Amino acid sequence: MDIYQKALKLHSDHQGKIAVKSKVRVRSREELSLAYSPGVAEPCRKINQDPEKLYQYTAYGNQVAVVSSGTAVLGLGDIGPKAALPVMEGKAVLFKEFANVDAFPLCVGTKQVDQIVDFVKLLEPTFAGINLEDISAPRCFEIEARLKEETEMAIFHDDQHGTAIVVLAAVINALKLVNKSIDQIKIVVNGAGAAATAVSKLLLDAGAQNLIINDKIGILNSSNLDQYDSLRQDLIKRTNPDNLNGGLREAVKDADLFIGLSVGNILKAEMVEEMADDPLIFAMANPTPEIDPESALNAGAAVIATGRSDYPNQINNVLAFPGVFRGTLDVRASEISEGMKIAAAEAIAELVADDLSAEYIIPDPFDQRVVPAVAFAVAKNAIKNNLARIELSEQELKQKIENKLEKKTS
Amino acid sequence: MDIYQKALKLHSDHQGKIAVKSKVRVRSREELSLAYSPGVAEPCRKINQDPEKLYQYTAYGNQVAVVSSGTAVLGLGDIGPKAALPVMEGKAVLFKEFANVDAFPLCVGTKQVDQIVDFVKLLEPTFAGINLEDISAPRCFEIEARLKEETEMAIFHDDQHGTAIVVLAAVINALKLVNKSIDQIKIVVNGAGAAATAVSKLLLDAGAQNLIINDKIGILNSSNLDQYDSLRQDLIKRTNPDNLNGGLREAVKDADLFIGLSVGNILKAEMVEEMADDPLIFAMANPTPEIDPESALNAGAAVIATGRSDYPNQINNVLAFPGVFRGTLDVRASEISEGMKIAAAEAIAELVADDLSAEYIIPDPFDQRVVPAVAFAVAKNAIKNNLARIELSEQELKQKIENKLEKKTS
Repeated sequence: MDIYQKALKLHSDHQGKIAVKSKVRVRSREELSLAYSPGVAEPCRKINQDPEKLYQYTAYGNQVAVVSSGTAVLGLGDIGPKAALPVMEGKAVLFKEFANVDAFPLCVGTKQVDQIVDFVKLLEPTFAGINLEDISAPRCFEIEARLKEETEMAIFHDDQHGTAIVVLAAVINALKLVNKSIDQIKIVVNGAGAAATAVSKLLLDAGAQNLIINDKIGILNSSNLDQYDSLRQDLIKRTNPDNLNGGLREAVKDADLFIGLSVGNILKAEMVEEMADDPLIFAMANPTPEIDPESALNAGAAVIATGRSDYPNQINNVLAFPGVFRGTLDVRASEISEGMKIAAAEAIAELVADDLSAEYIIPDPFDQRVVPAVAFAVAKNAIKNNLARIELSEQELKQKIENKLEKKTS
Repeated sequence: MDIYQKALKLHSDHQGKIAVKSKVRVRSREELSLAYSPGVAEPCRKINQDPEKLYQYTAYGNQVAVVSSGTAVLGLGDIGPKAALPVMEGKAVLFKEFANVDAFPLCVGTKQVDQIVDFVKLLEPTFAGINLEDISAPRCFEIEARLKEETEMAIFHDDQHGTAIVVLAAVINALKLVNKSIDQIKIVVNGAGAAATAVSKLLLDAGAQNLIINDKIGILNSSNLDQYDSLRQDLIKRTNPDNLNGGLREAVKDADLFIGLSVGNILKAEMVEEMADDPLIFAMANPTPEIDPESALNAGAAVIATGRSDYPNQINNVLAFPGVFRGTLDVRASEISEGMKIAAAEAIAELVADDLSAEYIIPDPFDQRVVPAVAFAVAKNAIKNNLARIELSEQELKQKIENKLEKKTS
């Protein structure tokens, strides 16, 4: 059986990958009267008096909805909300297995921004966090921006920000290897979709000064700005300080770092040869990278990262989102800020420590240190910047995260 | 500790009563590649080609959303969606523990009919069934009617129909004891709220010919019809064939069966004395029944049922909704029809069999025979009336239900 047949069997054996679990037993009249009527009236009354008691008496504080319209699923595109359900269940599985977050998939039967926003807003009494997933650009930008503005839930579009965090972590470590600094290098981001947009923004927020975005229409600059929505226009204005023109070839000349979130085989070996010394190549198109890793190495690349698990340095979102939500939930943060994302990236990068090499710039997804480290860094940053709804000392925070993660296999 | 303190402790110990459970393990790259990318793409493609494959490859077919606006919660009233969450989690627990249905609570931040309807409609790709809960009348009628019309999900407002099914089951058996027939008795339903409305409708559909509804404004008849919404007007037109006037005293004179879904202590002993021979008294107001059971007995009642667990014959919805959904889901029924509800009531009634007595007209909620019997009856009725999306022989159906229920504690 190949991997696809095995996957079909796995999904069919269990009829999906998630279930609802009862944490209490109901096998007697007494148990029934405590979990349900009449006993349940008392936690209801307490929450009615003080809504913060939701955290104490319900699963609310550990609950995240994985919301998708199914319009940009993996490499499959707009396959619709039903066909997207296996991916969202998979996401819920990863939330549970990696970080003991109770995530529930909600695939919604619409593509309209207003309808998705209205839908998610109504979830506020039930979920502390929202993970948007596989929603196509540019709608995803408006949906996320409006939800951040109009709700008090922690909103995170993983395709954007999960990728951005892991890329930044890898960039931090790759720069150490070539002894360069983020504020002095020339960066080219190829693509202007959801992930590319978020990666560009986070790199700028982390100190990048010279970042160029190249899209299908060429290098983005003041002359073609109007082809993009207003949210991306704001971002594009922060890029390309020298107002370069042209296409990928012109963009990557003398660049120190290429970040591809686009299509396979678009970066040629001779382009890599025209980059600065010790160029860093992040070729993350799936399944075919922007340049074949062997060719990139032969052309002089100092470090290569891809989206694939069969090469070193896989940029895998699972390094980020479980810990990001664990930390966010554990301090009841009202948003997931750029600062929290940068803190997550730094925490991931730090774990590599002395083992750093061109073939090991980010930890393995199964490295057990990742989730607690990310959660702690994210939570600490939230507290520091007054985004947390509870105050915990570092010791209390560490203990809380550890307790939550210990229970994850039970 | 009293029951309320015990309930608080239970809810606080676990931080709520439900969790999401992963049915698959993700501890290696291979497991990750099957549950998530790239393997998950294959079930996505299969569902994209044939949406019915949702049942095979996802948890969809066993998933029910418990949707509430928190406007009519237990005896607490309009406490809002946050304070209602413990009840909805409790409902999810009962679904799981009694029938292995994966129910997820969704408390929505609105009271508006349109918003609730739009919200639930968007859930169609994720849930095979919807259990509406604790939504106040008359909005609950319109919400339910519109969802039945505008979606293909199985819609069930438990406060209405769960109660109606269990009342009908109890009525069937109580009538055997007094040797009367449903089409020849005079029935008084006191109250015209959600439960009373559904009870009245189901009794009429089950053959009642002379049913009178008495509400705060008196006996409902052609002269006061216009005080109700159009959905209840249609029902009221089917009641009170003799066009009686007056209040509860006039209504219950010579009645064979009193059904109270109203307020405590409203039915006086002297009213019971004016009922027909061997009157049946269902006094289900909580926590104080419409008449104290001892007083009713002294006044000549042949059978008494209440909503309380400390008297015999408790009308408890948990006898109905778990099995109703188990059967509905197992044949992929597109609705829960009046016929399926009557079949459920008959199945519950039959289990009492030769043990029938004035103190035992319905089974105990923990009677292990209830859920499979109700599920089987409901599913069989759905198949017979072409409401099922799959055909199963009786043998296959029994086996399927048994398999699902066997897994419930795993």
